[in-house]
Amino acid sequence: MTPTVADLIITGCTVLVHDDQERTGFREDAAIVVRDGVVEGVTDAGEVVDRAAVERIDARGQVAMPGLINCHTHAPMVALRGIAEDLPIEEWFNDVVWPVESNLVERDVELGARLACAEMIRAGVTCFADHYFAMDAVAAVVAECGLRAQLGEAFFSSQGPQGRERSLEFALRHRGAADGRITTALAPHAPYTVTDADLAATAELAREHGLPVHLHAAENRDQSEASLARHGVTPIGVLERTGILGTDVLIAHGTGILDDDLPLLRDAPGRVAVATAPRGYLRFAWPDTTPVRALHELGIPVGLATDGAASNNSLDVWESMALTALIQKSTTGDPRWLTSRQALHHATLQSASAVGLGDRLGSLAPGRRADIILVDLGGPHTQPVHDLAATLVHSARSSDVRTTIVDGRILMRDRELLTLDVAAVAGELGQRLPGLLDQCHGRRIQEYDA
Amino acid sequence: MTPTVADLIITGCTVLVHDDQERTGFREDAAIVVRDGVVEGVTDAGEVVDRAAVERIDARGQVAMPGLINCHTHAPMVALRGIAEDLPIEEWFNDVVWPVESNLVERDVELGARLACAEMIRAGVTCFADHYFAMDAVAAVVAECGLRAQLGEAFFSSQGPQGRERSLEFALRHRGAADGRITTALAPHAPYTVTDADLAATAELAREHGLPVHLHAAENRDQSEASLARHGVTPIGVLERTGILGTDVLIAHGTGILDDDLPLLRDAPGRVAVATAPRGYLRFAWPDTTPVRALHELGIPVGLATDGAASNNSLDVWESMALTALIQKSTTGDPRWLTSRQALHHATLQSASAVGLGDRLGSLAPGRRADIILVDLGGPHTQPVHDLAATLVHSARSSDVRTTIVDGRILMRDRELLTLDVAAVAGELGQRLPGLLDQCHGRRIQEYDA
Repeated sequence: MTPTVADLIITGCTVLVHDDQERTGFREDAAIVVRDGVVEGVTDAGEVVDRAAVERIDARGQVAMPGLINCHTHAPMVALRGIAEDLPIEEWFNDVVWPVESNLVERDVELGARLACAEMIRAGVTCFADHYFAMDAVAAVVAECGLRAQLGEAFFSSQGPQGRERSLEFALRHRGAADGRITTALAPHAPYTVTDADLAATAELAREHGLPVHLHAAENRDQSEASLARHGVTPIGVLERTGILGTDVLIAHGTGILDDDLPLLRDAPGRVAVATAPRGYLRFAWPDTTPVRALHELGIPVGLATDGAASNNSLDVWESMALTALIQKSTTGDPRWLTSRQALHHATLQSASAVGLGDRLGSLAPGRRADIILVDLGGPHTQPVHDLAATLVHSARSSDVRTTIVDGRILMRDRELLTLDVAAVAGELGQRLPGLLDQCHGRRIQEYDA
Repeated sequence: MTPTVADLIITGCTVLVHDDQERTGFREDAAIVVRDGVVEGVTDAGEVVDRAAVERIDARGQVAMPGLINCHTHAPMVALRGIAEDLPIEEWFNDVVWPVESNLVERDVELGARLACAEMIRAGVTCFADHYFAMDAVAAVVAECGLRAQLGEAFFSSQGPQGRERSLEFALRHRGAADGRITTALAPHAPYTVTDADLAATAELAREHGLPVHLHAAENRDQSEASLARHGVTPIGVLERTGILGTDVLIAHGTGILDDDLPLLRDAPGRVAVATAPRGYLRFAWPDTTPVRALHELGIPVGLATDGAASNNSLDVWESMALTALIQKSTTGDPRWLTSRQALHHATLQSASAVGLGDRLGSLAPGRRADIILVDLGGPHTQPVHDLAATLVHSARSSDVRTTIVDGRILMRDRELLTLDVAAVAGELGQRLPGLLDQCHGRRIQEYDA
């Protein structure tokens, strides 16, 4: 029997694979066969010499790994990159970000999303979980540029019931769009901006429609202490009593998760995951980082994230991977905790679970979606290689990603973007900035008082 | 009068400049004129249209800034990159690094130095302070590849008086070599491996020969506490009582500098500087980082560094710049401390002072050496630019450096290295690794017991 023609065969690379215990391994001089948008198989390079393929990539000297997943971002906020530096979070929100965001219109969101997608494709990100406004524009950009995304239309209770209704309507309308590359979530902003009643209604809608929930919670210790003082319950306690922990919920940040919250998370009836974006916690001088070790002990996946570029200055998930390992060592006081292999597990299988795609992404194995990046280790900064996991996590940089592939489609080849035009986007966005930055109206979209 | 022909004119860029208060500013659409290895002037691009030059670079869309300075590294240790991961420092030294270093021969050091110089040129580093063994080989590589360096032959007291004598002989023989690009220092390893008598003799030699001293001290809190328990004095106290603080001394790390040490540093008769390499402190899970704010209040310059790649995994000073800002915010609990402009001050003038070249480097001003890097901000991750200092420190990456120039000579053009062959070096080094890693001899070059 003649094998069918493959769509894409990548040869000669070292492939990051997982064994049946989810341990990371590396298969050398291997080949990846892609057909119909999925990985058909990972095999020896010699096995595919005669196999016909529409396209072949010679990837000698490169490592193939699952594309990175940005588990919590606000992609269009790249438009505000660097706009509010060296401020505590309340001034960052109230004095700059929320006033400026009251100027945003759909065209700004669209241009920001396009620039963000360009940045992510260049950095080896193949999927992102986005939580923002005017998300129709983001969905259109995702459909156009070829990335994968879990999208949620954010809402505050200050918008009235329309906010929640729009979030649901968006989630139902876009679910499964872009040939299945778009999944959706309900997206209440946070327990400090959404009432318990709205959170409970959201949990009910999530159950009724089979939708996940993506929100900010327990972002920092101040929020947890303020919640305890005002409501007698932590933010995680709010999620529990409103039923949010009974849904498939992705919690952004969680640096304010307290010890008493751990049993609630452990006993949650839903599938709980946390996204960590450690750069921003350093920048805002928060006293804690995401308690990755405690969550690990509960079996709760922790995905890697960047948050928006107005606080993180980039959408560089590769940096989040390295920083997660380093900051975990530092905050636990244990140099043996969060090894490079563990960091790669967060970057792959745990991030895939966090965005609800644990059965489709996160591993280069037969039947998984063909979201693949090729990383060039030929630079002087990645030589020699004594420990490939350490080389990937701590020596390589996002700029070493040469090729980015989603669903078997090449979105960047040899660092050239194939689906987006950065200069055109940056040019138009630049012209719109003066209007975007205008604060003379005195409005803001919301008040931070957590 | 016709102006002389310039060697190099760079046009159309934004130039990072300092005013007479050392404040960072940016001059747009500017030109840099280079002649005889120095900056002749920074002027408007329009002023140099008719000026003759041997070479011109059109740098529109790029930022010109002083080359980065790696104020403390062990360049040849790139050969051991990734060799000893996820270990506390005593196991890192005693079980891996010091046994393996007993195998090093001059050829390994030379290849390591060549790979390290390639990495640094690619990352926009134009000068490095190196502290290692077999430094004749490093000096030869520096002379060949065009970088600038302050070099010191390291010694332990366990080597007997010959160690110190070799360090002096090296410093005198290489001082001013490579057309002045090489400066030298005496290089005792650290107070925990060099006796008080040897440190006192070193201080005396430094004064006699007008040489600076470069050493590790107060690397972490454990060392300071062990020193207090054993000797009744902190490592900084040892430097004071042995006269090292009376020399021009560059102290690596200093995360174990205690409050009681600050008056000693303030009152030091010599010029004291500290080099900070924050990634390693996270990795080793040390409880503190370099006390940059306290040192700032004393007027002590803090230069940026990477340490060796066996602990830092890279020689990426750009990352050290960003991490210094982030870790300072985090450890002081103050999001307003260590702004991007302050980080750029550390990267430029303070780093130049730290390596004893405060009058020759650190600023693009007339008469300063022409050590210049050109940084491309056209990528999606650096757009738009609301705050150029923040864009440089927190959004740009070392891989955005397109051109690296030392003494007016172009060492990298459009990311192509002009003076080093990475593939050849990595190939030969790879063949030598099995011999380098062999530990069956049971030797180590020194014992860590601090």
